[in-house]
Amino acid sequence: MKKVEHIGIAVKDIEDANNIFAKLFNQNHYKVEQVQSEGVITSFFKIGETKIELLQGTHQDSPIAKFISKRGEGIHHIAFEVTDIDSEMDRLKSEGFELINSEAKDGADNKKIFFVHPKTTNGVLIELCQEKSS
Amino acid sequence: MKKVEHIGIAVKDIEDANNIFAKLFNQNHYKVEQVQSEGVITSFFKIGETKIELLQGTHQDSPIAKFISKRGEGIHHIAFEVTDIDSEMDRLKSEGFELINSEAKDGADNKKIFFVHPKTTNGVLIELCQEKSS
Repeated sequence: MKKVEHIGIAVKDIEDANNIFAKLFNQNHYKVEQVQSEGVITSFFKIGETKIELLQGTHQDSPIAKFISKRGEGIHHIAFEVTDIDSEMDRLKSEGFELINSEAKDGADNKKIFFVHPKTTNGVLIELCQEKSS
Repeated sequence: MKKVEHIGIAVKDIEDANNIFAKLFNQNHYKVEQVQSEGVITSFFKIGETKIELLQGTHQDSPIAKFISKRGEGIHHIAFEVTDIDSEMDRLKSEGFELINSEAKDGADNKKIFFVHPKTTNGVLIELCQEKSS
């Protein structure tokens, strides 16, 4: 794994959260992106080599809205960048990790992604991602 | 803020967690450190410029043990490295953030640290840290 590509934070109101994190980081978010398939709107900050990705659900049944109603706002997942997502998927499966996706799928920010279930990683939802070739 | 210095993950059993994360990252932890004042034992992995710090409470009343009994295992905090921790403390106070510490204190890994209360940062416990000059 090459780096912490981003840290996803579940928020109720992305406009409010953008203001809070802009003050915290002393910089504004640089991008907003909506991922319809995930029912999520995201905004991005960058600190060093890592993005901070704020996530607001766009409807009540979205994974982010469900997460918030169960656990409240807070850190939702950590994403690690890998060079070969398919071989990394095979490696983790053979190590006994439970993967949420059976194959890598399109995510925000021009990435192929998959998730590892938090029940096999001490309660941490982990995303692996690889930049799609353009 | 310069980078995500580390991500702290609260675990029940650090030996078990070390094995799990070693498989996940395909590398072993490189250091173990006990911080008596915080009632915590920590182990460290490194991915890119960021450390992953596993945290196990050493007694039932430690902050980590309390966190786990309330929320279960999982991501506990994000730590950002800054160049001048005292001026950053002043800046965040003047921006209206609630700080948990009234001044920077000694943390693990040769750092001066302070925490921002999660109630002013969308449920995210944030640490700011600066390497101590040796």
